[in-house]
Amino acid sequence: MEKINGKTTLFFKNKPSIIGTSTIVGPKEGEGNLAKYFDKIIDDDKFGEKTFEKAECKMLTYAIEHSIKNAGLKLDDIDAILSGDLLNQIISSSFSAREFNIPYLGVYNACSTMTEALLLSAALIDGGYMENTVAATGSHFSTAERQYRYPLELGCVRPPQSQWTVTGAGSAVISARQGDFPKITCATIGKVTDFGVTDANNMGAAMAPAAMTTLLTHFKNTNLTPEYYDLIITGDLGALGSRLLKDIMKERGVNIDLNHVDCGELIFNIDEKEYQGGSGAGCSATVFNSYIYDKLKRKKLNKVLFVATGALLSTVSTQQGETIPAIAHAVSIENDKGVNND
Amino acid sequence: MEKINGKTTLFFKNKPSIIGTSTIVGPKEGEGNLAKYFDKIIDDDKFGEKTFEKAECKMLTYAIEHSIKNAGLKLDDIDAILSGDLLNQIISSSFSAREFNIPYLGVYNACSTMTEALLLSAALIDGGYMENTVAATGSHFSTAERQYRYPLELGCVRPPQSQWTVTGAGSAVISARQGDFPKITCATIGKVTDFGVTDANNMGAAMAPAAMTTLLTHFKNTNLTPEYYDLIITGDLGALGSRLLKDIMKERGVNIDLNHVDCGELIFNIDEKEYQGGSGAGCSATVFNSYIYDKLKRKKLNKVLFVATGALLSTVSTQQGETIPAIAHAVSIENDKGVNND
Repeated sequence: MEKINGKTTLFFKNKPSIIGTSTIVGPKEGEGNLAKYFDKIIDDDKFGEKTFEKAECKMLTYAIEHSIKNAGLKLDDIDAILSGDLLNQIISSSFSAREFNIPYLGVYNACSTMTEALLLSAALIDGGYMENTVAATGSHFSTAERQYRYPLELGCVRPPQSQWTVTGAGSAVISARQGDFPKITCATIGKVTDFGVTDANNMGAAMAPAAMTTLLTHFKNTNLTPEYYDLIITGDLGALGSRLLKDIMKERGVNIDLNHVDCGELIFNIDEKEYQGGSGAGCSATVFNSYIYDKLKRKKLNKVLFVATGALLSTVSTQQGETIPAIAHAVSIENDKGVNND
Repeated sequence: MEKINGKTTLFFKNKPSIIGTSTIVGPKEGEGNLAKYFDKIIDDDKFGEKTFEKAECKMLTYAIEHSIKNAGLKLDDIDAILSGDLLNQIISSSFSAREFNIPYLGVYNACSTMTEALLLSAALIDGGYMENTVAATGSHFSTAERQYRYPLELGCVRPPQSQWTVTGAGSAVISARQGDFPKITCATIGKVTDFGVTDANNMGAAMAPAAMTTLLTHFKNTNLTPEYYDLIITGDLGALGSRLLKDIMKERGVNIDLNHVDCGELIFNIDEKEYQGGSGAGCSATVFNSYIYDKLKRKKLNKVLFVATGALLSTVSTQQGETIPAIAHAVSIENDKGVNND
């Protein structure tokens, strides 16, 4: 598992820009730490729709549309939407893409989908095939809960190692346009990593080894150390998974204690109900495309390594006795001028 | 819907090669027209596993492994696996990728996944980011049937417009290596197209408009006519969908009667049980990577436009009253020398 392959980091010569983002979240997320950074907070988690699934799709559509608007572009300027989500057959993404007259590439690496879409977007733009793409994903507590775990009506008690799926969607517009924007400089593609965790309520433990593998590969391939980055932000390891990651990295001689935080630790005001914090594809998508992007834009952060993590299970794989494999992709986002202007 | 966007065709300057493929199919497919072209025909559709899902994953693993072998490469030579499948959370692909120590990008556009994986592979290689990738997908009659339709034990009667999900997997190795190999010259990314079909037993009708939209865009962007191609091969429209495609193309002034065929029409010896022919992600994956690739290698075909089509539904979207949106991606595969050497 820990063999490191030297060919898996993509270096982008032309450094595609992230020229605009948008996020939308549910009522609970809107009471969290990052409320002021979100474009829209809905007060009804069905978003005026008949079902939670339709609400999830509508949120994703909102985020895509507004990221294009925030980037100062029109729908016609977008060459492709790269999107995926946690629902079976990624229906939120496909039905959302139906609303736009834009080519669509469905991607899926569970909760690491945001980084997968970002790195593929960067390659398509840097390679000269496209001018502007959209990378987007989202999740919804109620659709995830009833698809992956139990009917909501059961009111199951959640164990203390559990996390809370974020209701929200985030979208970024990646562009060949240069200028004073955060740039995608390189990215490391993850491998499927499986340490034999079987507890579907402990995703942090299942995913931490994947984050570690990708981080070690990234540092090796780029000849960088963690200190190079102002922030190494993982997707949804949660508080427990984040602690595990720090520990297993340290065991391998790499210390990320001082500059690592997890999106799942940031999004909620930690209280008992969320236990280890946020999770879901929407967790990293809403935190990165709001709070982190804002800090990059304002030069409060200038070098960010974004490592969204995904647990590649399904209910069928769990029922058939499988362990939980995981993956993580790392995307390096940097400002040209590493200066805090404030 | 029929507005045509001029920016959606990717032209590959370095023309990545398809240097090796492999296919594996179930017993029924092994009795079909293309039997002699498959690498392996299994005589037990559980492939020695306890469940159909595990068998599907094992077939995909087999195809990936043998495509690398057939390409004369080692696992270490592969920079990424791009793969997806029809199971919830594409578990066949993710669990298959776990078997290899190779970076993994999950992709999903239903039964058009083979072309999505091919075109993204071509971009990653042509752009200079990778040397060799694997593009793979598969499906299994019994896993698809019980996930999308009814328990197998019910023995439901199938309507005459239905198709039969192919049990099989196919994999291709795409490479920067030049030489006498079929080359990926360009590709057109599809948009989500929805003509309002709601009959989940009539996928051909749902997907034919998506194939049409992509074909019209492809011909416009490349300034080509259908006659340029020796063969325009769709993925799994089946006999009915294929006839529909020919008709709606003709209505728009483009005649593909003479050089269009569908993978779903080729794979089985048409008898009553399959009705309109094969379907599933494994349909185009097994036909393209065996019979079609063989004809390209032997210069019996020199210019092939491969247009796999996907229906982007899920059981939940159907239960919630949604229509069936579809997508199709076109990949142009050509030999340098357009000469039949035989």
